[in-house]
Amino acid sequence: SLLEEGDVFTPRFDAAGLVTAVVTDADDGMLLMVAHMNAQALGLTLETGIAHYWSRSRNTLWKKGETSGNLQQVVEIRTDCDQDAIWLRVKVTGHDATCHTGRRSCFYRTVVLVDGKGTLAADGSKPLFDAQETYRTPR
Amino acid sequence: SLLEEGDVFTPRFDAAGLVTAVVTDADDGMLLMVAHMNAQALGLTLETGIAHYWSRSRNTLWKKGETSGNLQQVVEIRTDCDQDAIWLRVKVTGHDATCHTGRRSCFYRTVVLVDGKGTLAADGSKPLFDAQETYRTPR
Repeated sequence: SLLEEGDVFTPRFDAAGLVTAVVTDADDGMLLMVAHMNAQALGLTLETGIAHYWSRSRNTLWKKGETSGNLQQVVEIRTDCDQDAIWLRVKVTGHDATCHTGRRSCFYRTVVLVDGKGTLAADGSKPLFDAQETYRTPR
Repeated sequence: SLLEEGDVFTPRFDAAGLVTAVVTDADDGMLLMVAHMNAQALGLTLETGIAHYWSRSRNTLWKKGETSGNLQQVVEIRTDCDQDAIWLRVKVTGHDATCHTGRRSCFYRTVVLVDGKGTLAADGSKPLFDAQETYRTPR
Protein backbone atom coordinates (compact mmCIF):
# COMPACT_ATOMS: atom_id res chain seq x y z
CA SER A 1 0.00 0.00 0.00
CA LEU A 2 1.01 3.65 -0.36
CA LEU A 3 1.05 4.01 3.42
CA GLU A 4 3.64 1.25 3.69
CA GLU A 5 5.62 1.53 0.47
CA GLY A 6 5.03 5.06 -0.81
CA ASP A 7 7.32 8.05 -0.51
CA VAL A 8 4.81 10.60 0.73
CA PHE A 9 4.95 11.30 4.46
CA THR A 10 1.39 11.16 5.78
CA PRO A 11 1.75 10.85 9.57
CA ARG A 12 -1.28 9.26 11.17
CA PHE A 13 -2.12 11.38 14.18
CA ASP A 14 -4.35 9.79 16.81
CA ALA A 15 -7.69 11.11 18.08
CA ALA A 16 -5.79 13.63 20.22
CA GLY A 17 -3.79 14.79 17.19
CA LEU A 18 -0.56 13.14 18.32
CA VAL A 19 2.00 10.64 17.08
CA THR A 20 4.42 8.76 19.32
CA ALA A 21 8.06 9.79 19.07
CA VAL A 22 10.88 7.46 20.10
CA VAL A 23 14.18 9.19 20.73
CA THR A 24 17.57 7.48 20.62
CA ASP A 25 21.14 8.74 20.77
CA ALA A 26 22.49 8.85 17.23
CA ASP A 27 25.94 7.77 18.41
CA ASP A 28 25.32 4.66 20.50
CA GLY A 29 21.62 3.98 19.94
CA MET A 30 20.66 4.36 23.62
CA LEU A 31 16.90 4.79 24.09
CA LEU A 32 16.55 8.21 25.69
CA MET A 33 12.82 8.94 25.90
CA VAL A 34 9.35 8.45 24.45
CA ALA A 35 7.26 11.55 23.80
CA HIS A 36 4.47 12.83 21.58
CA MET A 37 4.25 15.27 18.69
CA ASN A 38 1.36 17.14 17.18
CA ALA A 39 1.55 18.44 13.61
CA GLN A 40 3.10 21.73 14.72
CA ALA A 41 5.83 20.04 16.78
CA LEU A 42 6.62 17.66 13.95
CA GLY A 43 6.75 20.50 11.42
CA LEU A 44 9.06 22.58 13.64
CA THR A 45 11.31 19.57 14.18
CA LEU A 46 11.62 18.96 10.44
CA GLU A 47 12.17 22.65 9.68
CA THR A 48 14.63 23.55 12.44
CA GLY A 49 16.45 20.27 13.07
CA ILE A 50 15.80 20.74 16.80
CA ALA A 51 13.32 18.35 18.43
CA HIS A 52 9.96 19.80 19.46
CA TYR A 53 7.18 17.88 21.17
CA TRP A 54 3.69 18.31 22.54
CA SER A 55 3.65 18.12 26.32
CA ARG A 56 0.55 16.19 27.37
CA SER A 57 1.05 17.08 31.04
CA ARG A 58 1.47 20.81 30.41
CA ASN A 59 -0.73 20.89 27.32
CA THR A 60 1.69 23.01 25.36
CA LEU A 61 4.28 22.97 22.60
CA TRP A 62 7.59 21.91 24.11
CA LYS A 63 11.02 22.73 22.72
CA LYS A 64 12.90 19.99 24.52
CA GLY A 65 15.85 21.36 26.49
CA GLU A 66 14.77 24.99 26.40
CA THR A 67 15.08 25.22 30.20
CA SER A 68 17.87 22.73 30.87
CA GLY A 69 20.00 23.45 27.83
CA ASN A 70 19.74 19.81 26.80
CA LEU A 71 18.48 20.42 23.28
CA GLN A 72 18.17 17.55 20.82
CA GLN A 73 19.81 18.10 17.45
CA VAL A 74 18.15 15.79 14.97
CA VAL A 75 20.51 13.58 12.98
CA GLU A 76 17.83 11.45 11.31
CA ILE A 77 14.07 11.05 11.35
CA ARG A 78 12.36 7.79 10.45
CA THR A 79 8.77 6.62 10.46
CA ASP A 80 7.29 3.15 10.72
CA CYS A 81 5.24 1.01 8.36
CA ASP A 82 1.87 2.53 9.25
CA GLN A 83 3.26 6.02 9.89
CA ASP A 84 1.88 6.42 13.39
CA ALA A 85 5.26 6.51 15.12
CA ILE A 86 8.36 8.64 14.57
CA TRP A 87 11.93 7.70 15.41
CA LEU A 88 14.33 10.54 16.10
CA ARG A 89 18.06 9.86 16.20
CA VAL A 90 19.52 12.82 18.04
CA LYS A 91 22.63 14.40 19.48
CA VAL A 92 21.88 15.88 22.90
CA THR A 93 23.61 19.18 23.74
CA GLY A 94 24.27 20.61 27.22
CA HIS A 95 24.68 17.95 29.91
CA ASP A 96 23.87 15.08 27.53
CA ALA A 97 20.86 14.43 29.78
CA THR A 98 17.34 13.80 28.54
CA CYS A 99 15.31 12.84 31.62
CA HIS A 100 13.77 15.55 33.79
CA THR A 101 15.28 13.70 36.78
CA GLY A 102 18.67 14.72 35.39
CA ARG A 103 19.60 11.28 34.12
CA ARG A 104 20.80 10.57 30.59
CA SER A 105 17.80 8.35 29.76
CA CYS A 106 14.25 8.19 31.12
CA PHE A 107 14.52 4.38 31.10
CA TYR A 108 16.71 3.98 34.20
CA ARG A 109 14.69 1.18 35.84
CA THR A 110 14.20 -2.47 34.98
CA VAL A 111 10.94 -4.32 35.66
CA VAL A 112 10.87 -7.87 37.02
CA LEU A 113 8.27 -10.01 38.71
CA VAL A 114 8.98 -10.65 42.40
CA ASP A 115 6.41 -12.92 44.02
CA GLY A 116 4.10 -12.17 41.11
CA LYS A 117 4.41 -8.41 41.57
CA GLY A 118 6.03 -5.95 39.17
CA THR A 119 9.12 -4.61 40.87
CA LEU A 120 11.51 -1.89 39.70
CA ALA A 121 15.27 -1.79 40.09
CA ALA A 122 17.32 1.31 39.33
CA ASP A 123 20.25 0.75 36.99
CA GLY A 124 22.47 3.08 38.99
CA SER A 125 22.57 5.92 36.46
CA LYS A 126 23.08 9.27 38.21
CA PRO A 127 21.73 12.75 37.44
CA LEU A 128 24.02 14.70 35.13
CA PHE A 129 22.64 18.06 36.25
CA ASP A 130 20.78 19.43 39.26
CA ALA A 131 17.17 19.00 38.20
CA GLN A 132 15.73 20.71 41.28
CA GLU A 133 17.84 23.79 40.69
CA THR A 134 17.16 23.83 36.95
CA TYR A 135 13.39 23.44 37.13
CA ARG A 136 12.55 25.94 39.85
CA THR A 137 8.95 26.25 38.74
CA PRO A 138 7.05 23.02 39.36
CA ARG A 139 6.65 21.17 36.09
CA SER B 1 8.47 11.04 43.92
CA LEU B 2 7.49 7.38 44.29
CA LEU B 3 6.50 7.29 40.63
CA GLU B 4 10.00 8.35 39.61
CA GLU B 5 12.22 6.88 42.31
CA GLY B 6 10.18 4.09 43.93
CA ASP B 7 10.51 0.37 43.31
CA VAL B 8 6.82 -0.45 42.81
CA PHE B 9 5.76 -0.89 39.19
CA THR B 10 2.58 1.15 38.68
CA PRO B 11 2.20 1.47 34.91
CA ARG B 12 0.15 4.49 33.93
CA PHE B 13 -2.31 3.28 31.31
CA ASP B 14 -3.93 5.96 29.17
CA ALA B 15 -7.66 6.61 28.76
CA ALA B 16 -7.86 3.62 26.41
CA GLY B 17 -6.12 1.40 28.98
CA LEU B 18 -2.85 1.24 27.04
CA VAL B 19 0.83 1.98 27.54
CA THR B 20 3.30 2.48 24.71
CA ALA B 21 5.85 -0.28 24.20
CA VAL B 22 9.16 0.34 22.42
CA VAL B 23 10.86 -2.80 21.18
CA THR B 24 14.57 -3.09 20.43
CA ASP B 25 16.85 -5.99 19.57
CA ALA B 26 18.69 -7.01 22.72
CA ASP B 27 21.84 -7.77 20.75
CA ASP B 28 22.49 -4.67 18.65
CA GLY B 29 19.87 -2.22 19.99
CA MET B 30 18.07 -1.83 16.64
CA LEU B 31 14.63 -0.22 17.03
CA LEU B 32 12.22 -2.87 15.76
CA MET B 33 8.70 -1.56 16.44
CA VAL B 34 6.41 0.55 18.58
CA ALA B 35 3.23 -1.08 19.89
CA HIS B 36 0.75 -0.87 22.74
CA MET B 37 -0.03 -3.04 25.76
CA ASN B 38 -3.06 -3.25 27.99
CA ALA B 39 -2.79 -4.68 31.51
CA GLN B 40 -3.42 -8.23 30.29
CA ALA B 41 -0.76 -8.06 27.56
CA LEU B 42 1.75 -6.59 30.00
CA GLY B 43 0.98 -9.26 32.59
CA LEU B 44 1.33 -12.08 30.07
CA THR B 45 4.61 -10.62 28.84
CA LEU B 46 6.02 -10.50 32.36
CA GLU B 47 4.76 -13.99 33.22
CA THR B 48 5.71 -15.85 30.03
CA GLY B 49 8.76 -13.94 28.83
CA ILE B 50 7.16 -13.76 25.37
CA ALA B 51 5.95 -10.34 24.18
CA HIS B 52 2.19 -9.80 24.02
CA TYR B 53 0.49 -6.61 22.85
CA TRP B 54 -2.92 -5.11 22.32
CA SER B 55 -3.70 -4.69 18.64
CA ARG B 56 -5.51 -1.38 18.19
CA SER B 57 -6.38 -2.18 14.57
CA ARG B 58 -7.80 -5.63 15.31
CA ASN B 59 -8.99 -4.74 18.82
CA THR B 60 -7.62 -7.94 20.32
CA LEU B 61 -4.85 -9.41 22.42
CA TRP B 62 -1.90 -10.10 20.15
CA LYS B 63 0.84 -12.65 20.80
CA LYS B 64 3.41 -11.16 18.45
CA GLY B 65 4.70 -13.73 15.95
CA GLU B 66 1.96 -16.28 16.51
CA THR B 67 1.26 -16.39 12.77
CA SER B 68 4.70 -15.66 11.33
CA GLY B 69 6.78 -17.55 13.87
CA ASN B 70 8.66 -14.37 14.70
CA LEU B 71 8.09 -14.45 18.44
CA GLN B 72 9.84 -12.01 20.73
CA GLN B 73 11.70 -13.53 23.68
CA VAL B 74 12.05 -10.85 26.32
CA VAL B 75 15.57 -10.30 27.57
CA GLU B 76 14.82 -7.21 29.67
CA ILE B 77 11.91 -4.93 30.45
CA ARG B 78 12.36 -1.31 31.50
CA THR B 79 9.99 1.52 32.21
CA ASP B 80 10.49 5.29 32.07
CA CYS B 81 10.42 8.01 34.70
CA ASP B 82 6.65 8.50 34.68
CA GLN B 83 5.87 4.83 33.97
CA ASP B 84 3.72 5.42 30.89
CA ALA B 85 6.10 3.72 28.47
CA ILE B 86 7.68 0.27 28.43
CA TRP B 87 10.95 -0.69 26.76
CA LEU B 88 11.32 -4.32 25.74
CA ARG B 89 14.75 -5.65 24.78
CA VAL B 90 14.03 -8.83 22.85
CA LYS B 91 15.48 -11.69 20.84
CA VAL B 92 13.33 -12.36 17.77
CA THR B 93 12.86 -16.00 16.78
CA GLY B 94 11.92 -17.37 13.33
CA HIS B 95 13.02 -15.13 10.46
CA ASP B 96 14.35 -12.40 12.80
CA ALA B 97 11.70 -10.16 11.22
CA THR B 98 9.38 -7.88 13.17
CA CYS B 99 7.51 -5.82 10.57
CA HIS B 100 4.35 -7.22 8.97
CA THR B 101 5.87 -6.23 5.61
CA GLY B 102 8.48 -8.92 6.26
CA ARG B 103 11.30 -6.54 7.09
CA ARG B 104 13.44 -6.77 10.20
CA SER B 105 12.28 -3.38 11.54
CA CYS B 106 9.13 -1.35 11.00
CA PHE B 107 11.31 1.79 10.71
CA TYR B 108 12.64 1.21 7.19
CA ARG B 109 12.04 4.73 5.87
CA THR B 110 13.70 8.06 6.57
CA VAL B 111 11.81 11.36 6.52
CA VAL B 112 13.27 14.51 5.00
CA LEU B 113 11.84 17.80 3.79
CA VAL B 114 11.94 18.20 0.01
CA ASP B 115 10.63 21.58 -1.12
CA GLY B 116 8.97 21.91 2.28
CA LYS B 117 7.19 18.57 1.99
CA GLY B 118 7.79 15.48 4.11
CA THR B 119 9.29 12.84 1.85
CA LEU B 120 10.12 9.24 2.62
CA ALA B 121 13.10 7.24 1.41
CA ALA B 122 13.36 3.48 1.89
CA ASP B 123 16.61 2.32 3.49
CA GLY B 124 16.82 -0.70 1.20
CA SER B 125 16.00 -3.34 3.82
CA LYS B 126 14.32 -6.34 2.21
CA PRO B 127 11.58 -8.67 3.49
CA LEU B 128 12.99 -11.68 5.34
CA PHE B 129 9.87 -13.78 4.74
CA ASP B 130 6.95 -13.81 2.32
CA ALA B 131 4.42 -11.64 4.15
CA GLN B 132 1.66 -12.15 1.58
CA GLU B 133 1.96 -15.93 1.87
CA THR B 134 2.22 -15.84 5.67
CA TYR B 135 -0.75 -13.58 6.32
CA ARG B 136 -3.34 -15.12 4.03
CA THR B 137 -6.23 -13.61 5.96
CA PRO B 138 -6.31 -9.83 5.65
CA ARG B 139 -4.94 -8.28 8.81
